Amino acid sequence: MSSRSQAGYVVAVVGATGAVGSVLLDVLHERSFPIAELRPLASERSAGSSVAFAGRALEVQVARPEAFDSTDFVFFAATGSLSKTLAPEVVARGGIVIDKSSTWRMDDTVPLVVPEVNAAALDDHRGIIACPNCTTIGFVMTLEPLRRRAGLEAVVATTLQAVSGAGLPGLEELRVQQLALHDGRPAPPPQTFAAPIANNVVPLCDVLGEDGFSGEEAKLLEETRKILALPDLAVSITCVRVPVPTGHSASMLVQTTRPLPVSEAIQALADFPGIVATENGCLPTPAAVAGRDEVLVGRVRKDLHSDGLWLWQVSDNLRKGAATNAVQIAEEIIRRGLR
Amino acid sequence: MSSRSQAGYVVAVVGATGAVGSVLLDVLHERSFPIAELRPLASERSAGSSVAFAGRALEVQVARPEAFDSTDFVFFAATGSLSKTLAPEVVARGGIVIDKSSTWRMDDTVPLVVPEVNAAALDDHRGIIACPNCTTIGFVMTLEPLRRRAGLEAVVATTLQAVSGAGLPGLEELRVQQLALHDGRPAPPPQTFAAPIANNVVPLCDVLGEDGFSGEEAKLLEETRKILALPDLAVSITCVRVPVPTGHSASMLVQTTRPLPVSEAIQALADFPGIVATENGCLPTPAAVAGRDEVLVGRVRKDLHSDGLWLWQVSDNLRKGAATNAVQIAEEIIRRGLR
Repeated sequence: MSSRSQAGYVVAVVGATGAVGSVLLDVLHERSFPIAELRPLASERSAGSSVAFAGRALEVQVARPEAFDSTDFVFFAATGSLSKTLAPEVVARGGIVIDKSSTWRMDDTVPLVVPEVNAAALDDHRGIIACPNCTTIGFVMTLEPLRRRAGLEAVVATTLQAVSGAGLPGLEELRVQQLALHDGRPAPPPQTFAAPIANNVVPLCDVLGEDGFSGEEAKLLEETRKILALPDLAVSITCVRVPVPTGHSASMLVQTTRPLPVSEAIQALADFPGIVATENGCLPTPAAVAGRDEVLVGRVRKDLHSDGLWLWQVSDNLRKGAATNAVQIAEEIIRRGLR
Repeated sequence: MSSRSQAGYVVAVVGATGAVGSVLLDVLHERSFPIAELRPLASERSAGSSVAFAGRALEVQVARPEAFDSTDFVFFAATGSLSKTLAPEVVARGGIVIDKSSTWRMDDTVPLVVPEVNAAALDDHRGIIACPNCTTIGFVMTLEPLRRRAGLEAVVATTLQAVSGAGLPGLEELRVQQLALHDGRPAPPPQTFAAPIANNVVPLCDVLGEDGFSGEEAKLLEETRKILALPDLAVSITCVRVPVPTGHSASMLVQTTRPLPVSEAIQALADFPGIVATENGCLPTPAAVAGRDEVLVGRVRKDLHSDGLWLWQVSDNLRKGAATNAVQIAEEIIRRGLR
């Protein structure tokens, strides 16, 4: 342990005013992350405003390269383009980047980490660590205990994703549309989502690719394979946006290599850190998981036509799906003596 | 054609004040169903109120056996127990029952009919015809054109079901909870659904069976097999309730017997009566289908790991999922000279 670990670390948060950034500040404080200095940063547009941390108001500075001088950990919870430009500036200054954008995730030199699942990948880091997509995290958290017990062959899933997965603009779009419905007024045309989201569901997250799959569906496939180190795993997915503020859900049919009895699957899930496995009859919902760090898994049952298992999984996309996972990565780096 | 077809038929609607019943009255009028006399009926609790039909107010009478004297068609859009008791009374009086409840659906002597799919099953009717579950109808409408083109092996699906699938109490529960959220008040505890539904999704429709599948999931499996006359078809399903007033959605991965190119699948869907097939980029949503009689199918794409096809399907659960399908059954009975 360096002396720094006593005094604490210099931590910067890029995108401190966003949906994930503000939860990141909360999580750093809640978990008593050892901070000597905290620098909330944002694009020029948001700089100058202030954010709350540990009961104090901190002014948000512009995220420019000099702001990373002497930083230990820089969390990026902003646009991909900001990560792309600025992450190398952090590394050049000796800091470690933990990036929530999709920019670096599929880079072979960048570990993509969910600490409960593949913490060892951190050992090879070169300064940038990527935090997976918010949907991927609940996904691999649920798959890993099943894989360890019985191997993994294929997954067919439909996700039901909260609007805050699209950040504050997503939350605002739902709010404005719900208000208009309440008042009996026409809502302004949708901007963040492809169709109105209040009182509706929209079968598209991100944009469509040429193969008919969305960006979100492609990410979920690629990232799951990379994190689990199963490059050929069959992951068939449809991602749907639902009018829920926070909490991503996934309905999953999982084919394990060896048939796994339901009771054994529930035990494997319950024994895994960060998972709460509920018996049938207790229903995990987005509202129930909002504000929690665990992934809740329920409705585990044997498929009627195969050896597969159906299950239903929810996680708070802003916490375990983003901020908490990012902070856990930093904690794990310290624990491993990598900083 | 009997002389009756000139003057029109004596039609009764049991459950005329309910969510489906009121749409049934609309649909009968819109489609100019040949009606000589219309009798809106309901349980004792709702009798005495009035309903609108073709611009006139009609008093709702108690659904008792004598109310079925001389009826030609009696639509049941009420509780299963009412159908169970009263449907035989209609048949005994020479009328034809078209039942929206689940009571008679799996009875071997009762045709379970979606006219576009299996109208010929009507030829063997013995007075009672069952209308499938609202989710099943969109499901089999989507599967049948694919089956005719390429055979059908298996389906894995997750449904996202509107609250009006649980009738007026479901609509009211969503409304009351949304109002409470808007006003910042705590909502009363959920009664119709297993958890709060406003700003949430609930992975349970109906009650859980011992095998871990819900009643809704069991119905969808059994009814799909019966309608398609494929008793061994693998249909793996999770049914989820979403905070949408009207419009059931299903995310479906379909394995056909012969691999079906996407363009051919879209053509088969587009050619099928009652389906609107949209190309990728045009998104079918519950809000877009509400008030329409067609089933909208979109996001048709080739699975990346099998010869299967992913697609997304929506239908208005009160119209094609219930009222419209029931009226179409009556029209088909007349067309076939069965009345």
